[in-house]
Amino acid sequence: MKALISTVPFGSHNRLPLELLEGSGIEYVINPLNTKFTEDQLADLIPDFDILIAGTEPITRRVLAKATKLKLISRVGIGLDNVDLVAAKELGITVSYTPDAPAPAVAELTIGLMLSLLRNIHVANSQLHRGEWTRHLGRRIPEVTIGIIGVGRIGGRVLRRLSAFGTPRILVNDLHPNPKLVPELKLEWVGKDEIYRNADLISLHLPLSAHTKNMIRAEHLRMMKPDALIINTSRGGIINEQDLADVLNSGHLGGAAVDVFNQEPYRGVLSQIERCLLTAHMGSMSVDCRSRMEIEATEEAVRFATGKPLTSLVPEMEYGMHTKN
Amino acid sequence: MKALISTVPFGSHNRLPLELLEGSGIEYVINPLNTKFTEDQLADLIPDFDILIAGTEPITRRVLAKATKLKLISRVGIGLDNVDLVAAKELGITVSYTPDAPAPAVAELTIGLMLSLLRNIHVANSQLHRGEWTRHLGRRIPEVTIGIIGVGRIGGRVLRRLSAFGTPRILVNDLHPNPKLVPELKLEWVGKDEIYRNADLISLHLPLSAHTKNMIRAEHLRMMKPDALIINTSRGGIINEQDLADVLNSGHLGGAAVDVFNQEPYRGVLSQIERCLLTAHMGSMSVDCRSRMEIEATEEAVRFATGKPLTSLVPEMEYGMHTKN
Repeated sequence: MKALISTVPFGSHNRLPLELLEGSGIEYVINPLNTKFTEDQLADLIPDFDILIAGTEPITRRVLAKATKLKLISRVGIGLDNVDLVAAKELGITVSYTPDAPAPAVAELTIGLMLSLLRNIHVANSQLHRGEWTRHLGRRIPEVTIGIIGVGRIGGRVLRRLSAFGTPRILVNDLHPNPKLVPELKLEWVGKDEIYRNADLISLHLPLSAHTKNMIRAEHLRMMKPDALIINTSRGGIINEQDLADVLNSGHLGGAAVDVFNQEPYRGVLSQIERCLLTAHMGSMSVDCRSRMEIEATEEAVRFATGKPLTSLVPEMEYGMHTKN
Repeated sequence: MKALISTVPFGSHNRLPLELLEGSGIEYVINPLNTKFTEDQLADLIPDFDILIAGTEPITRRVLAKATKLKLISRVGIGLDNVDLVAAKELGITVSYTPDAPAPAVAELTIGLMLSLLRNIHVANSQLHRGEWTRHLGRRIPEVTIGIIGVGRIGGRVLRRLSAFGTPRILVNDLHPNPKLVPELKLEWVGKDEIYRNADLISLHLPLSAHTKNMIRAEHLRMMKPDALIINTSRGGIINEQDLADVLNSGHLGGAAVDVFNQEPYRGVLSQIERCLLTAHMGSMSVDCRSRMEIEATEEAVRFATGKPLTSLVPEMEYGMHTKN
């Protein structure tokens, strides 16, 4: 069996996933370009492989049509917006993922971005590195109204970490409200517009789907308070990037933090805006979570290669909800 | 009665402290330079005033010798390293402060700096703003050993906020160990050297005194792990700035976050080092804490002017422990 590992870095901090593959006699190739594959690059390489240990590169119907030997896509991570699940199913290709592993790392990064935005850490740092000194007056978590859109594995963890900072007013929105979530916080389950209008700090924890793509456009950003702060650590494209840049450039909003982009590596207009804090799709990038994701995805590949039942198959409901490439 | 308000900004976000002064018939002048007074600038202005509502400018014996009318120094904040307490006492000048008000804001900023350092948020942000994309692999709070030096009002609050992130190993050092502090965390009370040698992330929450000035020099920084992270939100001068720059430039340490400097506004060598996160003495700079500090310091001035007993006098033990200017 041959596996293509398209996601990078892989096995660099902890060699265990590579040892698991070697121990099971699975030949593997790690993405030799060391950057995210384009559709064409992946389509060129894929025909040789039985297993794809995948990142967020476009695994489209066109790619899958060339993947004549492929039997398993094992996603290192939770998002499935880059995989044409319907095409995979039609072609008899099984898809698994690691839905729980990244959540703690994404939640911690989100809290870090919240505190940076609230206190203008990122702006002060840029200023001091070019010799300017401004003592920014910020806000504390218990003093603001926080809006969380999407309260699943990650949003729930963000809320639990917030609870140690005092008791802010928290507005939450989810397709499936769960009144018992985080009993130590008084959560108000509201519509998205109410969050846009009333929250001082908004964080998104949603999958990318036909329903969430471009969900937040200029009209929604302009509904927000003049000094509102918005964070996206979920998927690029949920906030329209050009609209966010335009609205920030118009002077509206106190700041934004963006970890995920339509096209990665990101080189775009948001990098001209100092109060827009930018990170490089680093939500899951902690040593422990990344290792766990790599190990879980590899274990699934080993189970497949050795004829054992898979344990992290993508559930049926996911097949209906994702955008197609 | 005339009051000089040397700390800036003051009353800008919440006018209440100015209204309190006006309501009590206290004339006031807010620092017209809008930046921290030098010793000479303060000495020139001070002879006219009965009350000084003070920041962190140098209130030396030389300044106080010119302050022939001065009867009260009301410090907006907790640190007293800038006040020659012995000279004040000799000259019959009373000193009060606001020891509790800044603590929550400093603790939150510290957690924000911790998360930035652990995930390299500040480095990724600088890189993306100049068009570079690097996905930094970071660490999560429960995966590292945290060392807190100084576990008083602020250090204790940092620990309580950390407890929501899981249970890291926590090494603590204080002159007065308190085994019952933060019962939800298992704290190990150790010597400072043990923290320098074993912690991945070290944060200082100490007053500046003869004992703590230059407490952390090159030899201590080099004792730390090659990828250790260090944070100073307490007072400039506790870590020797030049030594920190030299050690970082030599490639040792994963990063540092510095909010406080020997001389402020800061313009120095640390601003050349990208993995050194810099903020502009913003520990107490949240709207709520800053307001509370300004109001408490003003209320003390009003009590004094109206002959009521003061409630936030600097305690006797402080008079023995501070460095003299």
